[in-house]
Amino acid sequence: MVMNLMRNRRSIRVYRTEPVPGEKVAKILEAGRLAPSGANRQPWVYIVVDDEALKGEIRKRSEEADSLFHKEAPDWLKNWLKEEGITTTKQFLTDAPFLVVVAGNTKAPYWLESTWISIAYMILLAENEGVGTLTYTPGNTEPLNKLLNLPKDYEVVAILPIGFPAETLPPEKRPRRPLAQIAFHNRHGINLPQSFGSNLHVRR
Amino acid sequence: MVMNLMRNRRSIRVYRTEPVPGEKVAKILEAGRLAPSGANRQPWVYIVVDDEALKGEIRKRSEEADSLFHKEAPDWLKNWLKEEGITTTKQFLTDAPFLVVVAGNTKAPYWLESTWISIAYMILLAENEGVGTLTYTPGNTEPLNKLLNLPKDYEVVAILPIGFPAETLPPEKRPRRPLAQIAFHNRHGINLPQSFGSNLHVRR
Repeated sequence: MVMNLMRNRRSIRVYRTEPVPGEKVAKILEAGRLAPSGANRQPWVYIVVDDEALKGEIRKRSEEADSLFHKEAPDWLKNWLKEEGITTTKQFLTDAPFLVVVAGNTKAPYWLESTWISIAYMILLAENEGVGTLTYTPGNTEPLNKLLNLPKDYEVVAILPIGFPAETLPPEKRPRRPLAQIAFHNRHGINLPQSFGSNLHVRR
Repeated sequence: MVMNLMRNRRSIRVYRTEPVPGEKVAKILEAGRLAPSGANRQPWVYIVVDDEALKGEIRKRSEEADSLFHKEAPDWLKNWLKEEGITTTKQFLTDAPFLVVVAGNTKAPYWLESTWISIAYMILLAENEGVGTLTYTPGNTEPLNKLLNLPKDYEVVAILPIGFPAETLPPEKRPRRPLAQIAFHNRHGINLPQSFGSNLHVRR
């Protein structure tokens, strides 16, 4: 059931190096391909990286970019990164057997929005296949565009490592705002009536 | 199976006015709530609109914005809109029993990207519930921010009409680029090897 995939999916930051069958990767890409897009332009491309040297290059450039990003982050974000144990070391970029680098055609209407729907489809399919992933965007994606020979007008938007998880995350590590705090009736600030049964969904 | 939801989901532009049970709407919102987000900020809010006058206002402002948008569209987009029969008349905004207006906190990191993952989750859950929807963004969302009393820093990103479809769309109305055209190996332009079985997925 799709709601269970959504509920159980966690962002995985530690991977086993063990290979993932290529068919599973292809299924994940196929899911991304099926996403709707602005004017049906399907503005996404997926670069599946398994070359170890190239993964190393991607990691190097991402860590460089993130060092700057972490340094310039506002205090609340610095604290969050610390609490989560997220450092500028991106070992998952070399440990995961595959990286799916997702790029989009910046000239297509709603290209970024469409590409992120496509990414959402892929992370759900990965969960369905029992494979871990993460939507990781380095602080600067510019160096990757050239490294991956992207055509003009295409930009990297995210890297999805694909691999079997080497960590088990408890659900309570992801506290969530209850529906009553984010869903409103006709205007912001007005609660949905009981007929929506929305209080049933107020859980973490 | 989640891939079937992805494969069968179509953007619905014609709706029956018949009510959708509130519980189904709540389930759709619950799916959106479960999306991952940048630094777990969950930057989205959902305004469920069923007030007929307010739906009329939203339609009026969207049609005004789209008149300008269609006029200024490049030729290829004008042609696409014509082929698809998409005009500036947005009857679905008043016919659909519910509009879920999705807005995001523009100060959160990756707020737009995160909010679109949340939208992707909602459209798949709608498909799972047998309810039609569409990710519609008017050419200018600015007038809606005030109309819906959004807090400072929040912006409307899309309107999802929620209703039972009054049209049945054949799959071939959505031609798709084959996987071989969008998925590459290590660098753009290099085909994935057979071991990915990706040719199996080359279908519309």
